[in-house]
Amino acid sequence: MDGKKIGRGDLALLVSKEGKEFLVQVDERLFGTHLGNVDLGNLLGQSWGCITTTHRGKELYVLKPSLHDLTRHIKRRTQIIFPKDLGFILMKLEVGPGKRVIECGTGSGSLTLALAWMAGPTGRVISYEKEEAFSLLARENLERVGLADRVEFKLKDAREGFDERDVDALFLDVRNPWDYLEQAYQALAGGHTLGILVPTTNQVSRTLEGLAQNGFVHAEVCEILMRRYKANPERLRPEDRMVAHTGFLIFARKGTLKEVEDGTLPE
Amino acid sequence: MDGKKIGRGDLALLVSKEGKEFLVQVDERLFGTHLGNVDLGNLLGQSWGCITTTHRGKELYVLKPSLHDLTRHIKRRTQIIFPKDLGFILMKLEVGPGKRVIECGTGSGSLTLALAWMAGPTGRVISYEKEEAFSLLARENLERVGLADRVEFKLKDAREGFDERDVDALFLDVRNPWDYLEQAYQALAGGHTLGILVPTTNQVSRTLEGLAQNGFVHAEVCEILMRRYKANPERLRPEDRMVAHTGFLIFARKGTLKEVEDGTLPE
Amino acid sequence: MDGKKIGRGDLALLVSKEGKEFLVQVDERLFGTHLGNVDLGNLLGQSWGCITTTHRGKELYVLKPSLHDLTRHIKRRTQIIFPKDLGFILMKLEVGPGKRVIECGTGSGSLTLALAWMAGPTGRVISYEKEEAFSLLARENLERVGLADRVEFKLKDAREGFDERDVDALFLDVRNPWDYLEQAYQALAGGHTLGILVPTTNQVSRTLEGLAQNGFVHAEVCEILMRRYKANPERLRPEDRMVAHTGFLIFARKGTLKEVEDGTLPE
Amino acid sequence: MDGKKIGRGDLALLVSKEGKEFLVQVDERLFGTHLGNVDLGNLLGQSWGCITTTHRGKELYVLKPSLHDLTRHIKRRTQIIFPKDLGFILMKLEVGPGKRVIECGTGSGSLTLALAWMAGPTGRVISYEKEEAFSLLARENLERVGLADRVEFKLKDAREGFDERDVDALFLDVRNPWDYLEQAYQALAGGHTLGILVPTTNQVSRTLEGLAQNGFVHAEVCEILMRRYKANPERLRPEDRMVAHTGFLIFARKGTLKEVEDGTLPE
Repeated sequence: MDGKKIGRGDLALLVSKEGKEFLVQVDERLFGTHLGNVDLGNLLGQSWGCITTTHRGKELYVLKPSLHDLTRHIKRRTQIIFPKDLGFILMKLEVGPGKRVIECGTGSGSLTLALAWMAGPTGRVISYEKEEAFSLLARENLERVGLADRVEFKLKDAREGFDERDVDALFLDVRNPWDYLEQAYQALAGGHTLGILVPTTNQVSRTLEGLAQNGFVHAEVCEILMRRYKANPERLRPEDRMVAHTGFLIFARKGTLKEVEDGTLPE
Repeated sequence: MDGKKIGRGDLALLVSKEGKEFLVQVDERLFGTHLGNVDLGNLLGQSWGCITTTHRGKELYVLKPSLHDLTRHIKRRTQIIFPKDLGFILMKLEVGPGKRVIECGTGSGSLTLALAWMAGPTGRVISYEKEEAFSLLARENLERVGLADRVEFKLKDAREGFDERDVDALFLDVRNPWDYLEQAYQALAGGHTLGILVPTTNQVSRTLEGLAQNGFVHAEVCEILMRRYKANPERLRPEDRMVAHTGFLIFARKGTLKEVEDGTLPE
Repeated sequence: MDGKKIGRGDLALLVSKEGKEFLVQVDERLFGTHLGNVDLGNLLGQSWGCITTTHRGKELYVLKPSLHDLTRHIKRRTQIIFPKDLGFILMKLEVGPGKRVIECGTGSGSLTLALAWMAGPTGRVISYEKEEAFSLLARENLERVGLADRVEFKLKDAREGFDERDVDALFLDVRNPWDYLEQAYQALAGGHTLGILVPTTNQVSRTLEGLAQNGFVHAEVCEILMRRYKANPERLRPEDRMVAHTGFLIFARKGTLKEVEDGTLPE
Repeated sequence: MDGKKIGRGDLALLVSKEGKEFLVQVDERLFGTHLGNVDLGNLLGQSWGCITTTHRGKELYVLKPSLHDLTRHIKRRTQIIFPKDLGFILMKLEVGPGKRVIECGTGSGSLTLALAWMAGPTGRVISYEKEEAFSLLARENLERVGLADRVEFKLKDAREGFDERDVDALFLDVRNPWDYLEQAYQALAGGHTLGILVPTTNQVSRTLEGLAQNGFVHAEVCEILMRRYKANPERLRPEDRMVAHTGFLIFARKGTLKEVEDGTLPE
């Protein structure tokens, strides 16, 4: 398959006219939904963007999933990081083709997936998790999208320390990030970015105190909010309700306390 | 240089304690700021994250710029797309290592830069712009960050049509996106994502009408808002003022009107 | 009763520890809730702020209802105006003790109630509604809170014109406010404020055009958003979801096109 | 004057086409602005809503000030409470014609003004302030709008206790509200509402702890945000920047710990 036609094993996003979405792996099998069954075998060799019909006559668009779709449709047993936050994290961390990044708190793997996508085949994601069930689930989610080989899953509480040094970026998605800051400092390359997500203001305050005590500089705190609109050109308006809070994002850089000596070249 | 030490030609982000930022290319030269002059030559061979001091005694952190920093510090002659929006665009478009994406409306090149970063050395960004001055400025911005070789700058009004076919994603940053939808449909691969940014609700309505008339499906409209906090652990609070609006983001998929025929394998 | 003790006929707000609210009129009767039955007769003569217990052992605070509570707990057959919007409307309109204000589109009466509360016993609210069912429901809601005598309910489509002149303020809560602007201009006192609520951006645009054509000046458009927090001092955080949109508020002043003639006293 | 014509001593809001506002007291005098001088004497006897012209030819609308205008244009030496917050406070507190309310932290008097407006000639506002300069400024502001006779200004730190009992509502606008909760409990009528404004999350947490310890129940925390739009019907869009934070609003009710005894009429 050249990528323009739907092939066996491809992930496809099925979307109803009302916006109900299903992420499926295409193969010769039936896929059951509350809108009726879809014979996925019929999609093989079709063009992306075509319409398929359930046995109950409901039409579904067959779309190429974006990173946004993939992260939203992972199997989850934990709170996942939302796409609105993931996108901003990707901007703030030094992540991209060939980069090596650590994530602490694999959870269900939504950030793992985004990092692996962006790091590319030459990059590397090292993902720490102390709960085996989560680590296995995340691996399964990454395998489904074909990105598991870019990730090293470590079943370990990183409070004992990260095994890596000089990584390009590090993200903490744990309840008590202040307990991991010394370890993060050891693992991260100088001047690079540490990212943290916490839901409460109390955690933000305590984390900020820890950052200052552990050699991190230029700390920033923000929230990302997404407001969706009803896409009706004649009655355009925001949706009635929105997600008002997922978490506070904290970013800081690893500083060195050594000042540049004027005029002398360091060794 | 192995990347852990600051080398000649590296881009560095200098940040004061108060958060004032400067993006500089490191070389043996003086860099003047309102906080005093910095002898950039002294940074050569230093570790990222070190502190340098201006001739007036002000300390500056020397940090590794993230994609967020690079896009914010481009030279601009147009309104740029903000990092909060760029991050979400990267999630929604099919962009990543090896992908081929079109951007229409190069402007100063903030999205060009983000797309080039994410597409990686094996990917390709084709960026259309009808104003030569903008195209040249964007090229200069991309050259400074070393990503220009991933981008093909085209000085052309894409209303005459895009030269490419089957691209993985396409983004329109123009005043009148409804005039470019037929052309975008021709260039984009089926089932893939078109992204659009417009500042007014009237433009959103008119664009949504155009999308429905031109074979695009699953249209979505949203805004991304970023709220920053003062990073003081003992007096944590949102900043007094914020950017309240940059633009509305519209996303839609290229549909094919052909329905999958039940039970027969298409040719 | 002197107002410090709960009396027969008083409205009371019963609130569970989890924040579930009930607005009741106190009398010797049982009030049934999903938390169990409350013998309201037991409240007679008690102090406001006391705790009562349902027959299933659930505790409920017995609180004095605020205007906020009264407007939220009216019986409704239409979308009501939310307290966050009502509060701002009260600030913008010339409403207060002794004022005379018109409302067009009585609906279920939430704004009617707020206006009547603020206008006081010496003020007057004239409320137009073309649907008899709504007008009757609003009257019932106002009677329950004892404010119906401050309101004149008119069953009439105000497109035929308002009967009053020189009112202190006028509010339009109708689908097509542009059809009522000429009439509103006739009724409102010069230099005073017209308020309008509409849910879509298309309605805002059309209304703004109508305002300019009908002698209104200094038009303003805004939205009011309320973000609630979980009131846990150790885990303070915004609630997960919020109301993202109720409507756009438009305010404008009745202008006169006559310019003040310099130096001559007008007749 | 019957209120329909502009009279001597009336407050008028002058507004330029660009939205620049001036609140003036009309009298036979010149009023200087950066748009030129206005001969206020010419306004006497004119209709509200007329247009006047500065000596430099700039036109200004002559409008009737709303409560919103009056609170925004007070003379200030402190941070004032914004109209978006004032409106919601008026909804939550038991304030309206004839009510008696306490405010602690007079500041420049913006809330004092709103409370006095709403309390009407039969109501009463008692406003505590320990800084004489603020109390005098607030009195001056209230005198200018003709509402000072509804207010009792007390120059006293309310930590020593409020002199009143059984007031309908009480508002704390002080740095350390936790130091005033016991006193507020003494002064407020049972089941009625205490309101508090604080800017930081740390203050919110500490206040919530204090409320629980001092007999207050049903605590709620929220923020009110106002987003303004450019009122251009053909290019409708939110303004570029907005006020992102003024303060967190906290509301709670005075509870009594005494439970209603089942079936026995209390004495």
